[in-house]
Amino acid sequence: MRLLLVMAPVAILTLISACTTTATRTDAQDENVRRDIEAVVRAQEAAWNRGDVAGFMEAGYWRSPDMTFFSESDATRGFEPVLERYVARYKTGGAEMGSLTFAHVEVMPLGMDAAFVRGRWDLDFAQRPDVGGLFTLVFRRIDGRWRIVHDHTSL
Amino acid sequence: MRLLLVMAPVAILTLISACTTTATRTDAQDENVRRDIEAVVRAQEAAWNRGDVAGFMEAGYWRSPDMTFFSESDATRGFEPVLERYVARYKTGGAEMGSLTFAHVEVMPLGMDAAFVRGRWDLDFAQRPDVGGLFTLVFRRIDGRWRIVHDHTSL
Repeated sequence: MRLLLVMAPVAILTLISACTTTATRTDAQDENVRRDIEAVVRAQEAAWNRGDVAGFMEAGYWRSPDMTFFSESDATRGFEPVLERYVARYKTGGAEMGSLTFAHVEVMPLGMDAAFVRGRWDLDFAQRPDVGGLFTLVFRRIDGRWRIVHDHTSL
Repeated sequence: MRLLLVMAPVAILTLISACTTTATRTDAQDENVRRDIEAVVRAQEAAWNRGDVAGFMEAGYWRSPDMTFFSESDATRGFEPVLERYVARYKTGGAEMGSLTFAHVEVMPLGMDAAFVRGRWDLDFAQRPDVGGLFTLVFRRIDGRWRIVHDHTSL
């Protein structure tokens, strides 16, 4: 009985502590989010630069019909349509994929399970003028993996 | 003593419940986020349409040097520089502000204190060609108010 009386406050304090941990993030947690998402973005860059458009998509994008992709004035909805768009632009008729670089990548945590990324992209081509611009990515942690749920890209 | 023994489990269960509420959002909470953010966006639209650029900024944007604004290939950082950019484009030398409409506004909650918004903007002018395009807004709830911490706009 005495043990129960001693343990109850301990249990309560432990729960309060767990609750606080959930509600307010630590710098270390934010640092982990930044590191994990930066790794996703670099995996995408690497896949693109070995000519693997499907791998580029798999490495980052949420495989869902609700994933959205804004490029200039063009809105595409769904993983498959976005993949088809990339294939049509960069893989069809011997199109050159170019060399992709992400620069000024800033990962901004938005809680434990969401973040956004802002940065600059550059595609260098051998046979046509280089292109580049800005991007914004919205990430959610879904089933333990950081996935891009929305991409806004501009030139 | 008996009361204490009864109350301890009640306290523990209450805490678990509070904790769960923090960690997993309800549909009603998401609905509130959507309603509150939609109101911010509509307040911005109304301020613009009465010719009030400063009011447009105040209604939505985070008043911080860390607020960021991407428009096409142009990155601007800080509330004041973004305001100056709007003033230079839409208020200087008798420039026309036009009539602003936000359409297809979708508010996507990302936890209790963050969300993103995707949609379409259109500016109709009397004396020059209309312009329009897509936008992505990242919102955070800061000191109880929903603020745009990042805006990506394209034509």
